[in-house]
Amino acid sequence: MGNSFGLLFRVTTFGESHGPAIGAVIDGCPPRLPLEPADIQSELDRRRPGQSDLSSPRAEADRVEILSGLFQGKTTGAPLAFLVRNTDHRPSAYTEIAAAFRPSHADFAWWKKFGIRDPNGGGRSSARETIARVAAGAVAKKILAASGVEIRAFTTRIHDIAAPGAALENFPSLAEVEANAARCPHPETAAAMIERVKAVRAEGDSVGGVVECRARGVPAGLGEPVFDRLDADLAKAMLSIPASKGFEIGAGFGGSLSRGSLLNDPFGSANGQIRPLSNNSGGVQGGISNGAEIRFRVAFKPTPTIALPQQTVDTSGNPVELAARGRHDPCVVPRAVVIVEAMTALVLLDHLLRQTARTRSL
Amino acid sequence: MGNSFGLLFRVTTFGESHGPAIGAVIDGCPPRLPLEPADIQSELDRRRPGQSDLSSPRAEADRVEILSGLFQGKTTGAPLAFLVRNTDHRPSAYTEIAAAFRPSHADFAWWKKFGIRDPNGGGRSSARETIARVAAGAVAKKILAASGVEIRAFTTRIHDIAAPGAALENFPSLAEVEANAARCPHPETAAAMIERVKAVRAEGDSVGGVVECRARGVPAGLGEPVFDRLDADLAKAMLSIPASKGFEIGAGFGGSLSRGSLLNDPFGSANGQIRPLSNNSGGVQGGISNGAEIRFRVAFKPTPTIALPQQTVDTSGNPVELAARGRHDPCVVPRAVVIVEAMTALVLLDHLLRQTARTRSL
Amino acid sequence: MGNSFGLLFRVTTFGESHGPAIGAVIDGCPPRLPLEPADIQSELDRRRPGQSDLSSPRAEADRVEILSGLFQGKTTGAPLAFLVRNTDHRPSAYTEIAAAFRPSHADFAWWKKFGIRDPNGGGRSSARETIARVAAGAVAKKILAASGVEIRAFTTRIHDIAAPGAALENFPSLAEVEANAARCPHPETAAAMIERVKAVRAEGDSVGGVVECRARGVPAGLGEPVFDRLDADLAKAMLSIPASKGFEIGAGFGGSLSRGSLLNDPFGSANGQIRPLSNNSGGVQGGISNGAEIRFRVAFKPTPTIALPQQTVDTSGNPVELAARGRHDPCVVPRAVVIVEAMTALVLLDHLLRQTARTRSL
Amino acid sequence: MGNSFGLLFRVTTFGESHGPAIGAVIDGCPPRLPLEPADIQSELDRRRPGQSDLSSPRAEADRVEILSGLFQGKTTGAPLAFLVRNTDHRPSAYTEIAAAFRPSHADFAWWKKFGIRDPNGGGRSSARETIARVAAGAVAKKILAASGVEIRAFTTRIHDIAAPGAALENFPSLAEVEANAARCPHPETAAAMIERVKAVRAEGDSVGGVVECRARGVPAGLGEPVFDRLDADLAKAMLSIPASKGFEIGAGFGGSLSRGSLLNDPFGSANGQIRPLSNNSGGVQGGISNGAEIRFRVAFKPTPTIALPQQTVDTSGNPVELAARGRHDPCVVPRAVVIVEAMTALVLLDHLLRQTARTRSL
Repeated sequence: MGNSFGLLFRVTTFGESHGPAIGAVIDGCPPRLPLEPADIQSELDRRRPGQSDLSSPRAEADRVEILSGLFQGKTTGAPLAFLVRNTDHRPSAYTEIAAAFRPSHADFAWWKKFGIRDPNGGGRSSARETIARVAAGAVAKKILAASGVEIRAFTTRIHDIAAPGAALENFPSLAEVEANAARCPHPETAAAMIERVKAVRAEGDSVGGVVECRARGVPAGLGEPVFDRLDADLAKAMLSIPASKGFEIGAGFGGSLSRGSLLNDPFGSANGQIRPLSNNSGGVQGGISNGAEIRFRVAFKPTPTIALPQQTVDTSGNPVELAARGRHDPCVVPRAVVIVEAMTALVLLDHLLRQTARTRSL
Repeated sequence: MGNSFGLLFRVTTFGESHGPAIGAVIDGCPPRLPLEPADIQSELDRRRPGQSDLSSPRAEADRVEILSGLFQGKTTGAPLAFLVRNTDHRPSAYTEIAAAFRPSHADFAWWKKFGIRDPNGGGRSSARETIARVAAGAVAKKILAASGVEIRAFTTRIHDIAAPGAALENFPSLAEVEANAARCPHPETAAAMIERVKAVRAEGDSVGGVVECRARGVPAGLGEPVFDRLDADLAKAMLSIPASKGFEIGAGFGGSLSRGSLLNDPFGSANGQIRPLSNNSGGVQGGISNGAEIRFRVAFKPTPTIALPQQTVDTSGNPVELAARGRHDPCVVPRAVVIVEAMTALVLLDHLLRQTARTRSL
Repeated sequence: MGNSFGLLFRVTTFGESHGPAIGAVIDGCPPRLPLEPADIQSELDRRRPGQSDLSSPRAEADRVEILSGLFQGKTTGAPLAFLVRNTDHRPSAYTEIAAAFRPSHADFAWWKKFGIRDPNGGGRSSARETIARVAAGAVAKKILAASGVEIRAFTTRIHDIAAPGAALENFPSLAEVEANAARCPHPETAAAMIERVKAVRAEGDSVGGVVECRARGVPAGLGEPVFDRLDADLAKAMLSIPASKGFEIGAGFGGSLSRGSLLNDPFGSANGQIRPLSNNSGGVQGGISNGAEIRFRVAFKPTPTIALPQQTVDTSGNPVELAARGRHDPCVVPRAVVIVEAMTALVLLDHLLRQTARTRSL
Repeated sequence: MGNSFGLLFRVTTFGESHGPAIGAVIDGCPPRLPLEPADIQSELDRRRPGQSDLSSPRAEADRVEILSGLFQGKTTGAPLAFLVRNTDHRPSAYTEIAAAFRPSHADFAWWKKFGIRDPNGGGRSSARETIARVAAGAVAKKILAASGVEIRAFTTRIHDIAAPGAALENFPSLAEVEANAARCPHPETAAAMIERVKAVRAEGDSVGGVVECRARGVPAGLGEPVFDRLDADLAKAMLSIPASKGFEIGAGFGGSLSRGSLLNDPFGSANGQIRPLSNNSGGVQGGISNGAEIRFRVAFKPTPTIALPQQTVDTSGNPVELAARGRHDPCVVPRAVVIVEAMTALVLLDHLLRQTARTRSL
């Protein structure tokens, strides 16, 4: 249970870090969508490790194979299944994990839950699982793009190095985000972030940060109160990403320091179209999109895997000292950008289809 | 769609602010649970308006009637349905709402979604909807209590008045929380909060704040990766509460300013039991409870309804000035405490039942 | 669990035979549908007991009260909740049920499942539960009618008295079905059926029969292979009705005696429209509607409650003799006609909405 | 949508007849189950075509590859994904299908639904899709076996050749079922069935029949009224199998010809255990298993693909004559036996897990 996401565009994922493959099945993909592996591969390539010196050196081609749901280059409405083979297995690197519970990792909790665990690279709890999310998100993005919806996530803070708010007020282009290894569209900040990550890695340590995500072109009316609010489903999607520990939309936690008279978004009208004149709500009011840009932020903790020695216990409870030898990222934030976008696409498309079902005229 | 919550303990709610009744159906309530209306009423009384001068003066008895699922004082396993009649209707107070879109309210987005709206008190988008959540949560809490799980939410900040962290390190008692109208277990802070709310209300304005929630006695192993993680489902539950704009668990956003070596929770062992020695994870690792206390915070925005005049437009897009005359809370935070607890109970119980299903021995 | 039906037009029901009320919540009702209690009441009146001497003499007004989801005579898209109060309680009539397991009733199995049971009139297992289905079905029917879909069920056999097939080839009118207490649109057969039921009742016994259901105007393309086929969901809906024991669509069991060359439905074309020239498929091929009339049949067993003395055991396993004294129908078939229609409407509307979601142009 | 089955043991399938692979993901498989590919392969081998001269000569090895969810020979609780590569593609054999709508096939309805279709072997509508069901069912069977539940389906009728009822009263052994190509445990009848199928095939025609399924060792208490009744979910499962057109449980349609006094199953007691003394209910009462053997039957229509020429239309509506040249079974019933067992296992296990969740003591 728990490995499916979405109601009408429903993604079910599978696979472990060092098993044969990672993959997913999308049930509910609209038919007649032109789709080729390259549409998915381009997003997987953004997520792939080993692309900059900020990320894990694991060498994986991460080639996607589409198994079903396509006919002559178009989706058929049948389940779209795809997989990515794991190739760079190094189980021997994980002998220590098998014997001890890594601090702040999933090891202990998963073992308490399932009574068994696959220690190789964390098994199912590895962030390699997000390959399936990124691939499914690529399909969702393509459909959303055809409806005029564009999603852009980027790094706003790594450790305590934050981009100035004013610098990120505009919707960044994909090129601006991809221009540097930090995925921060403010070049000066990005340079400082990269220095910080390198310095921290050299110390054998890790850092966290914040990803911001925007979506424009989202029609008003998406979200299903009272429980499946658009912001509620976005929050769930974000907290389901490994290492995420917080979510805020619009003014978020900061807005709780303000007053109604300052924070409220008044409505105005132009060219016969009503719209909010400010966007402290982050594009969602009462759980439903209001046509303004969707804006939210996600907090990521420092990678728990560090090279510095840490005290912990083995599976029998005996104290052991642990120092990571597996490959890992000193900061997950830049790669999380791609995953945040993918999960956002899954939420928005699912709600777009739910709202479409409602449009049947009576 | 969107009015049900939970997979195995599934709550479906209904009702509008000024309709005949608010209610819910719980499907999946375990059988043979001793239950009487008073179990639910006591929680409804905590949520009820008009109890302090911080909340709306709307006078509602909010008496619960149980319609099904009980036999001789015990649950039968059949759906447990209940309703609360609305009595203090004053539709005339809402004529202006019908004509204009209130800033930062659900009015506009819901109208774009449904093409129709019930303006009386906000209709379905009113926070009166949360009566059903609190009632269902009361049932969940009773079942959880029998499993040794205790949930306590409280106010940690209103506007910029925050309780000192050290003061709230212990798990507060219900009496400490209920001791004041702010529902802040630190009396000095509570007094300042209450003064602030009164001052802001006098100005015709509103403020927001932060609610913290703890759960102790939660067994390790709850949560269903990769999507239905315990923290992901908690995040969704919290963001589904009216006026909430942020969620963070454990060290949350603040933790993203730290380093792995400082933030990681090492494991230790005592009396043959392995457990984390610190709790920056907030009781959840890899999406699964680890046996430590669950700790998270929720940000609430200032009530959008304020007495100060605001510019907005009517449904035709013409500018109008609006000043609230309906009854409302100048700060929703103290009442949100009760709703946060209820939603937490729904999440924890649902996951407890999901994990129970898994325990079937092979 | 198990008290909800449908994915996008989702009905959750509650209530026991002798509890305070029977009711339902519909989540996903399209907004802006004109609806008044009379739309529901008219169908409830068809289901109500005590209307002919074929049915139980229990005297219930079965007045529906709508609790939410309506504003100024139109649906709002919010959950539509309604209830029917039980008035004619006679718990004393059921003392014996509390002490013994009635043959072929739900008593024993439910007690094994839940460890508790409400014996009054069978509690939740009473066919009074179907009030909620009929009410929800009335709403679904109204929406379907606006899309040109019409559903008609009728009795084709009671005990061994069957209407001649040729007589029922046309789509019967509602008036023809309602013209007699048997709800068989062939008057001569209906008269014989009524005699048979009276004779059997006089003997203290009961009989079963078969209901046929047709739906015309169903667009081609409804049904979601491979599991949520239209015929699969209809089968589930029908087998969920109390006392039903069989389902067949199109040629059904009889068709399995034929040959492909005789049974296949060839396609033809007229006025530019392709359609099957015969309908042994019953309007569903490969799990999807093909535009032809939907045709299926449901078998109902004889009412298990009979006045003749029966051997059984009490809850301790001691032999007891039981003879029904509660009110019951000697044949459920005529009233089942109304329930079959309601469940058919729920299935067809849910699939219509699911297909509508798919129609979003790419 | 529609390609997942089950709530807690949830199977999602994918794949087309002539695509790269057929497969499935099982979410909710209990952890620590010893499992190896051979457990699945043995059931796939029973389903595989080309094993007798009654079935299609398509030569497929149907080798299963497990992609995830296993560690050192045991399930981990993570999704169990597997696939079977298609090898014997012959797209050229299906040129005619692409141009015309085959009578009583899914071609036309699917095209109306999706606006696109994969004609090769029927694409997703091919019965090759059931490979995934059989593989998932093999896992479910293994878990059920550990709980003492045994499932056995077999052929009771092909065309008009039916096994005598008395001959099949006992629970047949697997060996008895597998002893002949008809999968009828009554050898004399099986011989006649085989002759009939051969004769019909020689004529270029096809026949249908009936499969009976039994399950013993099913504990009382499975099934979730009022909608997810055990018999309702079995009915849905069976009608979701390609070519099935009818379902009946216990006395079924025949029982509707009887009287309550003759059909009711009285309860008796032996060795302190209460149980029904007869089984006209087929092991389910009020939608819940009562501990007696589950017994139901499924009707299958004659294979719509026949070698005899048939009139139909092409996609433009022009009349064409069609005669099958693809490989196909003249009678699907013997192979359907394996699929019926698999789907039964999926239903029973899912309900076993649902009931397990309920057993949490209060």
